[in-house]
Amino acid sequence: MNSVEMAHGSGGLAMQQLINRLFISAFDNPWLAEQEDQARISLESLALGGDRLAFSTDSYVIDPLFFPGGDIGKLAVCGTANDVAVSGAVPRYLSCGFILEEGLPLQTLTTLVNSMAQTAREAGIAIVTGDTKVVQRGAADKIFINTAGMGSIPRDVHWRAQSLTPGDVLLVSGTIGCHGATILNLREGLGLDGELTSDCAILTPLIQTLRNIRGVKALRDATRGGVNAVAHEFAAACGCGIELTESSLPVKPAVRGLCELLGLDPLNFANEGKLVIGVERQDAEAALAQLRSHPLGRDAAIIGEVVERSGVRLSGLYGVKRTLDLPHAEPLPRIC
Amino acid sequence: MNSVEMAHGSGGLAMQQLINRLFISAFDNPWLAEQEDQARISLESLALGGDRLAFSTDSYVIDPLFFPGGDIGKLAVCGTANDVAVSGAVPRYLSCGFILEEGLPLQTLTTLVNSMAQTAREAGIAIVTGDTKVVQRGAADKIFINTAGMGSIPRDVHWRAQSLTPGDVLLVSGTIGCHGATILNLREGLGLDGELTSDCAILTPLIQTLRNIRGVKALRDATRGGVNAVAHEFAAACGCGIELTESSLPVKPAVRGLCELLGLDPLNFANEGKLVIGVERQDAEAALAQLRSHPLGRDAAIIGEVVERSGVRLSGLYGVKRTLDLPHAEPLPRIC
Repeated sequence: MNSVEMAHGSGGLAMQQLINRLFISAFDNPWLAEQEDQARISLESLALGGDRLAFSTDSYVIDPLFFPGGDIGKLAVCGTANDVAVSGAVPRYLSCGFILEEGLPLQTLTTLVNSMAQTAREAGIAIVTGDTKVVQRGAADKIFINTAGMGSIPRDVHWRAQSLTPGDVLLVSGTIGCHGATILNLREGLGLDGELTSDCAILTPLIQTLRNIRGVKALRDATRGGVNAVAHEFAAACGCGIELTESSLPVKPAVRGLCELLGLDPLNFANEGKLVIGVERQDAEAALAQLRSHPLGRDAAIIGEVVERSGVRLSGLYGVKRTLDLPHAEPLPRIC
Repeated sequence: MNSVEMAHGSGGLAMQQLINRLFISAFDNPWLAEQEDQARISLESLALGGDRLAFSTDSYVIDPLFFPGGDIGKLAVCGTANDVAVSGAVPRYLSCGFILEEGLPLQTLTTLVNSMAQTAREAGIAIVTGDTKVVQRGAADKIFINTAGMGSIPRDVHWRAQSLTPGDVLLVSGTIGCHGATILNLREGLGLDGELTSDCAILTPLIQTLRNIRGVKALRDATRGGVNAVAHEFAAACGCGIELTESSLPVKPAVRGLCELLGLDPLNFANEGKLVIGVERQDAEAALAQLRSHPLGRDAAIIGEVVERSGVRLSGLYGVKRTLDLPHAEPLPRIC
C-alpha cells in the first residue's frame, strides 16, 4: 500500500491506522493524543493575559505542492498562523483538515505532514485536532489542506485597519512579490530557477517586536492580491485614500525582471511572509528601525501614506500619480 | 456571470464582491463584518462559565450536494457543531473554508451558503471568519467545505471515553443508519426515495439535557463508520470490551430493508444526528427517559454494555455472540 486509497477516508480501520501512524505521531501533542472528537484546551492557558481570541482559517490549494522555499504543508501552517498573528496574538493552536485524492503517494503525504509538524513545532504551535477525507481519482487535485488557528490578543493591542487616519505612514516588512514570482516561474517554466524563492515564513516573532512601538495602528500580511489588495482593504476600512511611492517599493532584481518580462506589477503579486503596517507618522522611523533589526524585516521600507482623498494611487518615478485599481483577478490562480 | 470563475478566488475585485454580496450578507454578524484577517472574540463571553475550549474541524466532500434531509451546507454546520457539542460545550463560533470548482453555478453556491446561514442561525452559531479558494474545472468536484468550530465546556462536565468501565451501559439516541442509507439509495438509484431521509441535525439541545444525568460518562456522535466505529473507539479508549445486542438496535424498516437487500450492516452506516452515550448502569434508565422526552431522542434505546473482555461483539437474536470487526473501509465513500 503505497498510495492513498478511498478506505483511508472511510471511518474504518485504514483511516484509524493512517491517523495513528502518521498524524498523531508527527503532530505529537497531548490534545491530539486524547483522540476525542474535539481538542479540549484550557481557557486559562489559552488566554495568557489576553482578552480576545483571534480565530482565522484558510484552505490551501497551491499548485505545485513543492516550490523553492516551501511546500503546501509549510504554507498551510504559516498562512493561517500569520492571519492570527497580525492581530497581535501569538498563534498557539491549529486545526487541520485534509482532502486527499485517491492515488496520492503516501510518501508525498508523509513529507507534507512532516513539513507541517516541523513548521508548527518551530513556531510553538500545536496541531490539536484534524480530519481526513479521501475523494476518488479526478475529484480533487492531489491534496488540499485547510487549517484554522487561534491565539489570544494581548489586552494592550488594538490594531485595526479602521483606525487609520490621514497622515499615517505605510511600511512593508521586506521585498515584495517573491512568493507569486516563484510560483509563476515554476509553473510557466520561465527558467529563473535559483534566483527566486518563496518568502513563506511565520511572522509572529517580527510582529511581536512591533508591540513596543506605540504608533502602530494596523497590520496585514500581504498574501493573495499582494500589497495592492492590502492598500485597498486599508482604504476601504478607514474611509480614506492610500498613496504609495513606486521608487520606495523593495523588489528583488529577479522579481522585477520577471515582472518587466511579462508586463506584470509586483504590487499585485502574492507574498507569504510580508507585512503591511500602518503607523502614526512620528513613530514611522522607529517602526522601520525595529523591523530592520529583525532578520524577517531586514529589507523593510516606508512605502506610502494614508491621505484624505479616497482611492489608491501610485506616485511614479517622475512624481506622476496614477490610480491603482484592484484587478478583477490576480494574474495567478492557485497561488496559495 | 452565472457561475464561479477563477477570479472569485484570486484576491482581486471579483473575490471581494463575492465575499461582500454573498458571505457577509448571508452570515451577517459583527465579527465577520469587521473584515479583519481574523475574527476577534471576547474571551470572557466565550468562556461563559466554562473552563476549557472545545475545538474541532471537519471537511465536507459529500456527493451528491443535495439529499433528502439536507445538503452539504447544512451538513458542514451540523457535523462540526456536533463534534464540539459532544464534549458538553455549546458550539458558538464557526470558521468556514470553501474550495470551489470553476463553473459551479452561483445559484448552487448561494443556496448552500443560505442553508449554512439558516442552520447556524437556528442553533445560535455565528460563522465568524472564512476563506474562499477556486480551482480550475476538474481540479475539485463542485464544492468542498471545511468548518472549524468552538465552544466552552462547562466546569462540571468531564465526559471522556477513557472513563468508561465494565458494567457501564451504552445508549443510542435514535434509529441508526439513516444518513448512510439515504446517500446510498440516492447514489445507486435503488428506488427507495420517499422512505429515506438523512438525520442531519444539530444535537446541542439534546446533549445539554444530559448534563442533568449524573452517570453520563462519554458521548460521541456516530458519523463515518457508524455506531460500530464508536464502539471500537470507546473500547480502545477505555481498554475494555463492548457488547451490543442486535435485537435492541433501533433501525427504520426502510433502512433495514436496504441493508438486507445489499447484505450490509446498519451498524456500519453513517449517521449525522445520532449519539452513542456511555452511562453508569444505575442511571441508564434515567438517561433513556431523558433522551426519549426530547424530539431528537424519541427513538433512543439501550443497545449494549461495557465488559471486561476486550473486543467488540454483537449478541445475535438467539444469544450467539459474534465479533464485530471494524471494517477496513466503510461501504460508501464521500458520505459526509
